[in-house]
Amino acid sequence: MNIIVQKYGGTSMANAKCVKNVANKVVRTKKKGNKVVVVVSAPAGMTDELVKRAKEVTEKPSGRELDMILATGEQISISLLAMAIKDLGEEAISFTSSQVGIFTDDNHNKAKIEAIETKKITEALDQNKVVIIAGFQGVTRNFEITTLGRGGSDTSAVAIGVALNASEIEIYTDVDGVYTADPRIVPNAHKISKISFEEMLEMAGSGAKVLHLRSVELAAKNHLPIHLRSSFTDTIGTYVTEEDENMEDVLVRGVAHTTNNAKITLANVPHTSQNIAYIFEEIANNNINVDVITQNYVDKDNLTISYTVSEDEFDSALELANRIGKEVKAQAVFGNEKVAKVCIIGVGMKSAAGVASRVFRCLANEGVEIDMVSTSDINISCIIRESDYQKAVIAIHNEFQL
Amino acid sequence: MNIIVQKYGGTSMANAKCVKNVANKVVRTKKKGNKVVVVVSAPAGMTDELVKRAKEVTEKPSGRELDMILATGEQISISLLAMAIKDLGEEAISFTSSQVGIFTDDNHNKAKIEAIETKKITEALDQNKVVIIAGFQGVTRNFEITTLGRGGSDTSAVAIGVALNASEIEIYTDVDGVYTADPRIVPNAHKISKISFEEMLEMAGSGAKVLHLRSVELAAKNHLPIHLRSSFTDTIGTYVTEEDENMEDVLVRGVAHTTNNAKITLANVPHTSQNIAYIFEEIANNNINVDVITQNYVDKDNLTISYTVSEDEFDSALELANRIGKEVKAQAVFGNEKVAKVCIIGVGMKSAAGVASRVFRCLANEGVEIDMVSTSDINISCIIRESDYQKAVIAIHNEFQL
Repeated sequence: MNIIVQKYGGTSMANAKCVKNVANKVVRTKKKGNKVVVVVSAPAGMTDELVKRAKEVTEKPSGRELDMILATGEQISISLLAMAIKDLGEEAISFTSSQVGIFTDDNHNKAKIEAIETKKITEALDQNKVVIIAGFQGVTRNFEITTLGRGGSDTSAVAIGVALNASEIEIYTDVDGVYTADPRIVPNAHKISKISFEEMLEMAGSGAKVLHLRSVELAAKNHLPIHLRSSFTDTIGTYVTEEDENMEDVLVRGVAHTTNNAKITLANVPHTSQNIAYIFEEIANNNINVDVITQNYVDKDNLTISYTVSEDEFDSALELANRIGKEVKAQAVFGNEKVAKVCIIGVGMKSAAGVASRVFRCLANEGVEIDMVSTSDINISCIIRESDYQKAVIAIHNEFQL
Repeated sequence: MNIIVQKYGGTSMANAKCVKNVANKVVRTKKKGNKVVVVVSAPAGMTDELVKRAKEVTEKPSGRELDMILATGEQISISLLAMAIKDLGEEAISFTSSQVGIFTDDNHNKAKIEAIETKKITEALDQNKVVIIAGFQGVTRNFEITTLGRGGSDTSAVAIGVALNASEIEIYTDVDGVYTADPRIVPNAHKISKISFEEMLEMAGSGAKVLHLRSVELAAKNHLPIHLRSSFTDTIGTYVTEEDENMEDVLVRGVAHTTNNAKITLANVPHTSQNIAYIFEEIANNNINVDVITQNYVDKDNLTISYTVSEDEFDSALELANRIGKEVKAQAVFGNEKVAKVCIIGVGMKSAAGVASRVFRCLANEGVEIDMVSTSDINISCIIRESDYQKAVIAIHNEFQL
């Protein structure tokens, strides 16, 4: 018998009406003859509410105690869904991660799943029950409660699917799939019916927030397809799967973008073997996350180094860059708080030349200046002025006839 | 080193300000050189809110799933209090009942504690940490989450105190002790400084809602004194302890009352050996809780039987009584929805005659008609018209100069 793992996000669990809607979907899947395991997130808004409660008590809640309070959100969801399913006449049982044994390392607030005990799950499935498991949370071998970080329920679902050797993972959310571009910006963007794991990884890493990055990595590693779809309709969504010949043969799969970026430049840094390593070590030591990095020779002895950081971290990152700049004898340090990143993604680019030049030409024709470029074999990322990002996304979407 | 167990109720944990106030009290106790274990309830109103969420999903939530959702309230409290204590610079650690190992039977929603593992608690105390434990909840040997029923956190605190061989249990609540009568009715009622376990059991069983009945039973059985006091002041409250010669030597310790009672009478029931047993078996089989029972011979062959039930259960209890009445050939069945119970309690009554006659005379002087009377050696319970209960309580309080 097939095991299907379904994951429902916070908006799908927001109130009693939503919970009953999810219960109906679950029961329908069960009645088709499947064994169903459901992974749920906290009701929409609850995690924020719990963080707020903690922050009212202390400015810096300890990681352990924050996980203790955050884990309650998913516990509320699992019990409500179990009640709703039983109300429809099907047997159901809810489990916390501690009860199942979803073992993680002890990095509170960003724990990684290490192992999953399947005994309780399979016993309950064999008793013809729908099994409902709290996403997002885990437990250490010492029975300390952990959480996986925002979006972690996707990863819980995939990890449970892998452990159970499920035939399919369905991730239900408030959008009906992955689009060729953000439909709010590109009205004729369309839903992608099949996307490869590699492309999805680039999309998720480049601003398409539909799936948690780690969940895609895990699914890819275990060759387990994900069906991403809406919990509010019955429409087929997007299959995230191995690259195969049935996949629509396109050069570019989609365009993703992020706007909350800032750029920092260290100009004319004397090129010594130590300088470059030192700069990025110092940035890492100060817990600033760097996204795109470019470096170019100005002349044979000097380099210009640029990198992007999150806009939230711009002030501290610039202060740090000014200090580092002095230490490495940079001629100047610049910061630009308002940049956007536009990423052009597609496995088709691997075997086709000229995609980059078409991107650059198309942006030039729109008067969009490209500040930084970084490429992999399936992704071209351009850093541009923030005010230009909408016309850039629309132009590229048209250029490649997505 | 002394171990002190402190329990704080929902009103003491209602919001961030309250939580910080509790943290201050805990830290002060710790700084006096005690090891402190704190047991907390869910923030005020949260348990009701969680029940409401469940009822929105299904009219009859399963006991297991209701416990799953209810247990989150206390989990929120323990984490917030741990954060607040750490914020004051003391080490603290929170534990759910599952983490500690507060093992109960598997009667969901009204589980009984069977055993408590003390290993995690004593380890943390030895590391100089304040230990914060979720009250109200427990776990079965099969790691199913249970709850102990309303007021169960008091019982958690006493059971933990017993397991740790604590020197004292402090139960913090929103009143500052046990009073000789309800101060809202008797303005000159005063706080009792010391009350025996026996008297407290009668008070708790008779409408004084300050302590969970089972927690007093447990403390009495283990000779562990409870200090009941307010979390909003530093005033000494009421000590609930063994009867001793230092206890104020009074005939009557206090007057308790309840108003949500209803009375049912089966009049002139032929007295056969089977009838009486049958009547109360049937009532029990229909899950109706009976409080006071009286029976009197009308003549040598016939009895009149009266009993009180909760007002909530009056309709179903009366319907049942009508059926039973026919079966046992009662001459008539009466019901009275509006009765009150007034209880006069004191260990001094054991060795003193004439307390009952003073009660009856005093009520007669006030024109209060006594409908039923039931006595134990330390408790005289009178069932009267509900409209009379205030003057009855005031009159008795004056009569015995409480």
